[in-house]
Amino acid sequence: MRVHVIGLGLIGGSLSFDIKDAFAEAKVYGYDLNKANEERALALGFIDDAFAWDELHLADIVILSIPVDAQQSALPKVLDGINDDALVFDAGSTKAKLCEVVAQHPKRRNFLATHPIAGTEFSGPDAAVRGLFQNKTNIICEVEKTAFKLQEKGLEIFRKIGMRIRYMDPKSHDKHIAYVSHLSHISSFMLGKTVIDKEQNERDIFDMAGSGFESTVRLAKSSPAMWTPIFKENKENILETLEEYIQNLERFKELMEADNFDEVFQTMENTNHIKTILKGIQ
Amino acid sequence: MRVHVIGLGLIGGSLSFDIKDAFAEAKVYGYDLNKANEERALALGFIDDAFAWDELHLADIVILSIPVDAQQSALPKVLDGINDDALVFDAGSTKAKLCEVVAQHPKRRNFLATHPIAGTEFSGPDAAVRGLFQNKTNIICEVEKTAFKLQEKGLEIFRKIGMRIRYMDPKSHDKHIAYVSHLSHISSFMLGKTVIDKEQNERDIFDMAGSGFESTVRLAKSSPAMWTPIFKENKENILETLEEYIQNLERFKELMEADNFDEVFQTMENTNHIKTILKGIQ
Repeated sequence: MRVHVIGLGLIGGSLSFDIKDAFAEAKVYGYDLNKANEERALALGFIDDAFAWDELHLADIVILSIPVDAQQSALPKVLDGINDDALVFDAGSTKAKLCEVVAQHPKRRNFLATHPIAGTEFSGPDAAVRGLFQNKTNIICEVEKTAFKLQEKGLEIFRKIGMRIRYMDPKSHDKHIAYVSHLSHISSFMLGKTVIDKEQNERDIFDMAGSGFESTVRLAKSSPAMWTPIFKENKENILETLEEYIQNLERFKELMEADNFDEVFQTMENTNHIKTILKGIQ
Repeated sequence: MRVHVIGLGLIGGSLSFDIKDAFAEAKVYGYDLNKANEERALALGFIDDAFAWDELHLADIVILSIPVDAQQSALPKVLDGINDDALVFDAGSTKAKLCEVVAQHPKRRNFLATHPIAGTEFSGPDAAVRGLFQNKTNIICEVEKTAFKLQEKGLEIFRKIGMRIRYMDPKSHDKHIAYVSHLSHISSFMLGKTVIDKEQNERDIFDMAGSGFESTVRLAKSSPAMWTPIFKENKENILETLEEYIQNLERFKELMEADNFDEVFQTMENTNHIKTILKGIQ
């Protein structure tokens, strides 16, 4: 099995590690616009060699793990370059526009639109880790548009690296993921900004920060190069969540200003059952 | 060493465990308005027995680990009840009003105002864990108002359970802690609320939530009974942080609406160095 990975960062690298571990016969070839990343991936051992774009026709599997805006220009070219039996899948955090871009492509059936919901706040080849996808969810969109044999090939990979599968249409995916992922990143970045702006001249204030703050701002360590395109692609959905979030914060502030602490308590109490909802998320 | 703990929840229980481990000769007695908590604390083994309020004079150390509003009415009564050589310390997340309340108390020198910055999102006796304070910061306020010998007693305990000490005046404490702790809780509760409100009829949407969301809403599992009084006590400071946070979110939203994604990128990039600032926080 010859796997070509385009984009050798956190996701591309972690997928490469796991595929090499799960498939003894797999050879992984890597491509990155940043040639230093190719060298680093080789040194870390998650690719066997680099590949040139005109070698794409040799691939059995192509993984597209690059920022979501770059995916949209790259995917049609990748499909142009592959052989008829190859499977291409992506790992992007938005799905609607990508599916739209290739809707009419003659090799649409070679593409499987996926979003493995796994990651860390780190990026680049050195962020790649083994086992990242174990017990995580992989959302597959428009599965019916992918050739049946290639669906099977993809599912075998996802199953062997430990993922559970959920099927969803691209628009629903983008709408819901705005709530459970994209908004968290904005809330975290802005929390980090608020505190840094205020405390920039008093660095030792961060001695006062406990694990709660660390947990809440963890996502503010994420890569702006990866997240800016996501915010751009999923703008409409994210603006809606952001508006609701701001309204909730405004309302909470008004309750505090009015000394209505019974309602402050009640609001938190009503949200508290997120404990049970989140049970099972690692 | 006879230690009396008032409030047998996460903090009172965890302190009891660690003090018993660190001081072989320590006997810990517990008091809780909820008598079921006393029984549970006995069963869990972090207290040796319950105590009655009129036995306070027997204590060498009294730990006040109850919600911050309850502390303000309880602390003067505790000071009334102790013997002249006893040390009383609290563990509350706000300090200015508590220090004010006992400023003129004849036994002010028996009190050490402390805020051990440690905790989890869980509460009650069953949330008590060993080693919670290891490598955590303990903020001590108005140390000069505590008798020197009792300062020493307190510092010995904090050192033995693994804490590092920072000194701060109560007003600065309350101002800064609003940024690095209290605001995080509101951002997290409101994030949880925003998502639950939207997705309440589609529970399986939470299958899409990854570890990033879990991390960002973790604090929304916290106890409203503990946090409502904190928000009330530290209202002015928290409103200021909340206003700044909302403004930052509004500004981010405007940048997105205006398709100014260069600035979106830049804003995140500027916050990204929180990586280095947070190094060292566990």
